[in-house]
Amino acid sequence: MFNRPSIEEIQDATLAKPGSKIDLKEYPTHGKVFFADKAEAKRSLKEDALAIDELQERLYAEKSQSLLVVFQGIDTSGKDGTTKAVFSQTSPLGMRVHAFGKPSANELDRDYLWRIHRDMPRKGEITVFNRSHYEDVLVGRVRNLAPKDQIEERYEQINNFEKHLTQNGVTIIKLMLHISRETQGERLLERLEVPEKRWKFNPGDLEDRKLWDDYQDAYQLAVERCSTEYAPWYIVPSDSRARRKATAARLVRGALEKMDPKIPDPGYRPEQFDIG
Amino acid sequence: MFNRPSIEEIQDATLAKPGSKIDLKEYPTHGKVFFADKAEAKRSLKEDALAIDELQERLYAEKSQSLLVVFQGIDTSGKDGTTKAVFSQTSPLGMRVHAFGKPSANELDRDYLWRIHRDMPRKGEITVFNRSHYEDVLVGRVRNLAPKDQIEERYEQINNFEKHLTQNGVTIIKLMLHISRETQGERLLERLEVPEKRWKFNPGDLEDRKLWDDYQDAYQLAVERCSTEYAPWYIVPSDSRARRKATAARLVRGALEKMDPKIPDPGYRPEQFDIG
Repeated sequence: MFNRPSIEEIQDATLAKPGSKIDLKEYPTHGKVFFADKAEAKRSLKEDALAIDELQERLYAEKSQSLLVVFQGIDTSGKDGTTKAVFSQTSPLGMRVHAFGKPSANELDRDYLWRIHRDMPRKGEITVFNRSHYEDVLVGRVRNLAPKDQIEERYEQINNFEKHLTQNGVTIIKLMLHISRETQGERLLERLEVPEKRWKFNPGDLEDRKLWDDYQDAYQLAVERCSTEYAPWYIVPSDSRARRKATAARLVRGALEKMDPKIPDPGYRPEQFDIG
Repeated sequence: MFNRPSIEEIQDATLAKPGSKIDLKEYPTHGKVFFADKAEAKRSLKEDALAIDELQERLYAEKSQSLLVVFQGIDTSGKDGTTKAVFSQTSPLGMRVHAFGKPSANELDRDYLWRIHRDMPRKGEITVFNRSHYEDVLVGRVRNLAPKDQIEERYEQINNFEKHLTQNGVTIIKLMLHISRETQGERLLERLEVPEKRWKFNPGDLEDRKLWDDYQDAYQLAVERCSTEYAPWYIVPSDSRARRKATAARLVRGALEKMDPKIPDPGYRPEQFDIG
């Protein structure tokens, strides 16, 4: 063990404390305070991914609880890469990823939580949201996609919705992938320069980049108002890919360990049955 | 390389030739003819799983085709384990597994292909069906869940449906996991004897086991009538776990290689944009 932080240490350092004022600028983006050594971050990720697989198998067998992991973060913050890394050892049998893009006409015909509710994990499953209902208080707020007073009401609506879910067997953790403006600039340039990454470049991302401060403010507000005891927000330093993945894996493993799923034993004995 | 069969050899040996009479008994269940050496089967699986991951990333980036892999097989034939092994390296971002159990009341209110169509892969995705519409000509036939003449009509309906899908960008491969009656007996006993596996034991499976011959006949008929050029059936020897996984991985890799997905290049150049 070289400086590996415990799950509790990572939780404490990244948690947006429920009921407290949040200043995003106080949360590091580099992550070196958690994993001084990059190689150690990689080892930690690998071990946690294996542990997550084992916990997922127990969750699947138990079939009574479920886990929802929400990834939010500005463009290039690493939502896809983190999902792939954290669940690299996990069977696709018991997990799903839902990416929430611009709502379809069918989705816009309902309230903004309708499509979110529709894609909840089943009992025994892990679901990852790549973006989520938080977009409705992020891009929704920054781009004035709804009247101001409606946006203001959403934070409480989201808290009530998430409370309802957790009271009905869904464990929720929310990870904000936190990067610096400089890192985003480097990653956007990388997408343009590396031919295999060029398909990921979306000129529209530059429009959002011009609104960097507005987005940071919207994130800060969402995290501050919606980090709760039952559905906490964690702010994950994401400038370093290896450290970001390792930190996220610690948090997901921590949530699953707390759920402590158990393989059920129906109590059958071989002598009860004639296999023939 | 120690005796590793090529993808083409595996395809040829396992294919239920479209338009031909099929005798299931002529297809081996042990798989030793493909992989004489078990360790070699494991190496082959590992390499194919990595190749499948890389192909899936290209498919996801390309976003124009999709792959549907249907796993069918009698209880304990290894549908779950094969899914996990073949896609052990694949990101959950671009793949989904749908397990089709007994239809819900909502599903029974529609025709039997309705729920199947609903869960088709999106462009760029791989979807695995753990059981499928074939249950409607398997358990449907054996247990007389619909009038005989209606069941008879389904084979053609399924072929037309699958043709429609393949004409619209979905590549389909169907794998029947083929085990002997003895192997099923051993695996059922194992589920009873090993405490961590006991939750998988379903006393109802013994009722189906009594109908072994009827199920084999129903499988033979389904494979014979529905193995087509556009959506072939492969009969995978599945008594040996390692060989079954390795064989399935060769077939999935073969399908993806034939699809040959390409990462798109939108042609952007760094100098076109001001990242700021």
